[in-house]
Amino acid sequence: MFRHEKNFLYPVKVSGPDPAFAAMLVEQHGGPNGELSACTQYLNQAVGCKDQMIKDLLLDIGTEELNHLELLSEAIKLLLGDPTINSINQAPTLELAGGGGAMYVNSSGNNWTAGFVSSVGDVVANLHSDVAAELKAKAVYQRLHQRAIDPGVKDLIDFLISREEAHAQLFMRALEKVQNQGVMQDFGDKLYANQYLDFSTGETNQTPGVWNMQPGNIPVAPPSH
Amino acid sequence: MFRHEKNFLYPVKVSGPDPAFAAMLVEQHGGPNGELSACTQYLNQAVGCKDQMIKDLLLDIGTEELNHLELLSEAIKLLLGDPTINSINQAPTLELAGGGGAMYVNSSGNNWTAGFVSSVGDVVANLHSDVAAELKAKAVYQRLHQRAIDPGVKDLIDFLISREEAHAQLFMRALEKVQNQGVMQDFGDKLYANQYLDFSTGETNQTPGVWNMQPGNIPVAPPSH
Amino acid sequence: MFRHEKNFLYPVKVSGPDPAFAAMLVEQHGGPNGELSACTQYLNQAVGCKDQMIKDLLLDIGTEELNHLELLSEAIKLLLGDPTINSINQAPTLELAGGGGAMYVNSSGNNWTAGFVSSVGDVVANLHSDVAAELKAKAVYQRLHQRAIDPGVKDLIDFLISREEAHAQLFMRALEKVQNQGVMQDFGDKLYANQYLDFSTGETNQTPGVWNMQPGNIPVAPPSH
Amino acid sequence: MFRHEKNFLYPVKVSGPDPAFAAMLVEQHGGPNGELSACTQYLNQAVGCKDQMIKDLLLDIGTEELNHLELLSEAIKLLLGDPTINSINQAPTLELAGGGGAMYVNSSGNNWTAGFVSSVGDVVANLHSDVAAELKAKAVYQRLHQRAIDPGVKDLIDFLISREEAHAQLFMRALEKVQNQGVMQDFGDKLYANQYLDFSTGETNQTPGVWNMQPGNIPVAPPSH
Amino acid sequence: MFRHEKNFLYPVKVSGPDPAFAAMLVEQHGGPNGELSACTQYLNQAVGCKDQMIKDLLLDIGTEELNHLELLSEAIKLLLGDPTINSINQAPTLELAGGGGAMYVNSSGNNWTAGFVSSVGDVVANLHSDVAAELKAKAVYQRLHQRAIDPGVKDLIDFLISREEAHAQLFMRALEKVQNQGVMQDFGDKLYANQYLDFSTGETNQTPGVWNMQPGNIPVAPPSH
Amino acid sequence: MFRHEKNFLYPVKVSGPDPAFAAMLVEQHGGPNGELSACTQYLNQAVGCKDQMIKDLLLDIGTEELNHLELLSEAIKLLLGDPTINSINQAPTLELAGGGGAMYVNSSGNNWTAGFVSSVGDVVANLHSDVAAELKAKAVYQRLHQRAIDPGVKDLIDFLISREEAHAQLFMRALEKVQNQGVMQDFGDKLYANQYLDFSTGETNQTPGVWNMQPGNIPVAPPSH
Repeated sequence: MFRHEKNFLYPVKVSGPDPAFAAMLVEQHGGPNGELSACTQYLNQAVGCKDQMIKDLLLDIGTEELNHLELLSEAIKLLLGDPTINSINQAPTLELAGGGGAMYVNSSGNNWTAGFVSSVGDVVANLHSDVAAELKAKAVYQRLHQRAIDPGVKDLIDFLISREEAHAQLFMRALEKVQNQGVMQDFGDKLYANQYLDFSTGETNQTPGVWNMQPGNIPVAPPSH
Repeated sequence: MFRHEKNFLYPVKVSGPDPAFAAMLVEQHGGPNGELSACTQYLNQAVGCKDQMIKDLLLDIGTEELNHLELLSEAIKLLLGDPTINSINQAPTLELAGGGGAMYVNSSGNNWTAGFVSSVGDVVANLHSDVAAELKAKAVYQRLHQRAIDPGVKDLIDFLISREEAHAQLFMRALEKVQNQGVMQDFGDKLYANQYLDFSTGETNQTPGVWNMQPGNIPVAPPSH
Repeated sequence: MFRHEKNFLYPVKVSGPDPAFAAMLVEQHGGPNGELSACTQYLNQAVGCKDQMIKDLLLDIGTEELNHLELLSEAIKLLLGDPTINSINQAPTLELAGGGGAMYVNSSGNNWTAGFVSSVGDVVANLHSDVAAELKAKAVYQRLHQRAIDPGVKDLIDFLISREEAHAQLFMRALEKVQNQGVMQDFGDKLYANQYLDFSTGETNQTPGVWNMQPGNIPVAPPSH
Repeated sequence: MFRHEKNFLYPVKVSGPDPAFAAMLVEQHGGPNGELSACTQYLNQAVGCKDQMIKDLLLDIGTEELNHLELLSEAIKLLLGDPTINSINQAPTLELAGGGGAMYVNSSGNNWTAGFVSSVGDVVANLHSDVAAELKAKAVYQRLHQRAIDPGVKDLIDFLISREEAHAQLFMRALEKVQNQGVMQDFGDKLYANQYLDFSTGETNQTPGVWNMQPGNIPVAPPSH
Repeated sequence: MFRHEKNFLYPVKVSGPDPAFAAMLVEQHGGPNGELSACTQYLNQAVGCKDQMIKDLLLDIGTEELNHLELLSEAIKLLLGDPTINSINQAPTLELAGGGGAMYVNSSGNNWTAGFVSSVGDVVANLHSDVAAELKAKAVYQRLHQRAIDPGVKDLIDFLISREEAHAQLFMRALEKVQNQGVMQDFGDKLYANQYLDFSTGETNQTPGVWNMQPGNIPVAPPSH
Repeated sequence: MFRHEKNFLYPVKVSGPDPAFAAMLVEQHGGPNGELSACTQYLNQAVGCKDQMIKDLLLDIGTEELNHLELLSEAIKLLLGDPTINSINQAPTLELAGGGGAMYVNSSGNNWTAGFVSSVGDVVANLHSDVAAELKAKAVYQRLHQRAIDPGVKDLIDFLISREEAHAQLFMRALEKVQNQGVMQDFGDKLYANQYLDFSTGETNQTPGVWNMQPGNIPVAPPSH
């Protein structure tokens, strides 16, 4: 059961309206690698998780992402300013349809869809998706940080980057705990599970990668039937 | 800021697996009139709400809907049972892709989309959408209640129906408080704002509706330019 | 059965191309609160409506919205101008993919989806959605009106705002006629249907809203199971 | 400008509820090749069409497809029956969310999207899409006709198949009128515009097709850069 | 079975970054009329095609479109430049979420969807869709060609236009081969299959089109039931 | 540049039609964790990859997934049988709209969308997504394997599971090569990047997880602003 406190997890300080940046920041509000994706993914995975420690972890991080979403909503609202004054149309959909509020859309105004949520009911596959989700989120936040000018917004993004790193580490440790479970059972124990099939030919292929050097993993020509 | 307690708002009691009903109940988990729609809509509206009382109301009800979502997630998981045992394929996507967990999809397996969220930054328009959302949710829950057999599930749906009613009433009262604000300003003060244009002809049109009886609202033939 | 006349419901006068405004106006052509949403919603609700007066109302207004859609299509085409001349790329998708015609997209170029249509087969829930739809449409049109410069376009939007008001009033009167039907039956007759559950704590909560003052509706702490 | 008459273009006679067939017939109501796609496509193309004869044709056929949509809506409603009685769940989303009415979805319950509409502002490309649309619609209707049992429904589908044929013929004739316009200008006047690049090798390639026999169209190996 | 060579079908030469043009060119990468649509459509149709010559054609052209997609991916990447340097935000989503790579989106940043694929399992209907697809693609490429400045990009688009023309011709010839098959069987052999129903009245209708002049095709008033 | 050979990577043997299983197997054809997702993801990532070895790996595996897609397309077509004979409607959309061919949809008939593709232009974040993609695919294939009866189909799925394992291993090794690049730079070097914020309280939280035991990672109460 969730409860809500009327405080924020981190200060949301915005110097003044900047609708153009609001239209970019919304990428992490409703985009594929954003906070709505993160909180729905972890909270959904938590429901079916049989490992109580990992369930607890998913609930803690999922709840934190919900709080990140709240921080971004507030920041975007402040960056949009009053759409009846700042009618300079740098964020048309957020101004016209959102009326100056954050929408669950990405920086192109695409609606968020549950197609962004990775939750397949296998603890190892889920945790790998979660590590990936945190690192993707960090990558996008770094690009936003690079473009941000307002010091309060820059500081908020910096906080969020750090938290994505913290979460990534936690999910990596959780993976260690369950590394032989679920899809990792009976992993790599058949012939085809260890072959490198070489489908692409030409220049960049000349120096084989380290993965090609493993015993039993010599590149082979694809069979043909 | 949200916090999470590891208790439920209401008991989730399921007698045994019933994947076919799980596949129906998911309509209110990730369908257009379901709990994910409700909580994201109210929490989003709250961010930009300038009326502090209504902001509080939106946060209270938005948080409760998040808790309803949690109840449904748990119920659906229990109804699906273990997909490695109950492989009778009455809920194929929930079994194959969800691995036995609730997904953010409707009863046809469609992904939830933020296109379901009504939040246009106007307090009156938003509250009307919220009343509608609660009544639509009630309508769908009633159809699920009619089809439910498991007594625990039936009781849970009954609780949720009552809560939708409570929320609908609260939103109606909130509307009374703001009835002349926002889009209701300069409402109906022009000629075209009071005309009934009669575009459809034939049998069902013969008895004019009560709305046609208002002064200034006599059906007129549509103009043509 | 529909018939088409080669006249418009209202004059469509555009002084000259303004692709940037075309890209905004398309919000009401194919956006969630736009004319395609309105006409499909009302015409769909009409099919199953058992109240003949309200069915007539839905057909009249649904047909009118279809005519609004036609007006916007024409206005957007004129505002886009000839994409082979005005290749200044202020409305890229409408120019490249639409070839200078209105598409069923919102101001971010998102495709319209039937997920925007509220029609749940209950006359009261439907009519509340319809009131909300008209008010949301008015809110968006007002923001467009504020940004419009071309006098003919401004006048057209003014007409459309008035018509949304007329429709909102008509739907409100229709609601009065059916106020105890459908989902309003057995409404609020259980304990949980009248409780105010207080999930959010902190500053904005200090002055309780009017809705909290009703007998039987004293805020209670959420139960926990 | 559209007007509506409260009669149908063709009789809608349904012997009794058959929700399972309703769930299939909805494919042509809100599926990619269905009536909503057809009417929105033709009416949208009409707006920008500079050839007045073809504009007239698009308006006539677009309006007819709107009437086909109305016929299907009525038929589906009758086939669904009363969802409070026929709660046998053969059409779950139409029953739960639609309340017994036709939704703008396909036979899998997917929402219709404007991504189904082909309208690129070129009269020749558009008309080819329209011929294709009619033939695809016929193909799907034929499969529905094969599965239909109710004589009234079977007769209605038969009528709709005939009309798709009529429309396909009309669009083909319209194409003859404009065959050298738009994208057909400067067509095939360069080297690469007449080469057959042979990318796929193996068994089925041994007998060259008739298209390979044209002068200047001898299959050549793809270049490589 | 596909194999990949590390060469391109055509040279991809880009003088320097131009993110604004990248954001337009992506229309043909992930837009409805673009290369991902084309290759998935033809390869999908090939699977079920019983005519071995046409199956071969679909595989050849489908594979070529896959190669066009690769050319566009490379060109868009080069046009975007390094998003850590060119942070001028002319292509926000491609920079923020794509990190400087082509995404499967259109020029408004909308995700590609399989709703763009026309493949209904009927050889004639499919081939008409394919002719339409090529002509629509040409129309969009022409508008991009008109807006392109970089000579290498302009030349690449010119090549792609020529290839769309080549494919359009090939599909037209393939249609000749199968013209009486599939949906064309029992085509136009009933009364309703040859009537022109005149639903739209008014000015543009005064000069009847050539299609109205055919015997048996005299415009008739729509029936009414 | 891709070329196509008219042989398969693996034998596709199907004993006879089984439309119900076809409707499940399509989950890996056009579902989020399926082969279209995999091939588009890896081929897209390859374009911008600056590490030539990893680029080669992505091209090899991306091309193989394209071949897996082809195997599934063929298998699904054979499982569907002839929709004019097997009109038993166990796979309605595949029969009605697909005409007996595999569509790019999941087991609920949802269209594939590019929202399923994870490619953010960072080599480490991308490779983590790729490991996750392979493990998720394996999880879904295992559930299909469990439900498959036809020995040829079961054998094909077994092959595909092995290949997902091979790919997962290869991506894991590739990750080792680049482990300190991209988003992993400046990773975990700030205070907030190492804190465990404890947002959820109650029963399952009592035994702290191993991740809580790290120095500097003691659970702390979330701050509040």
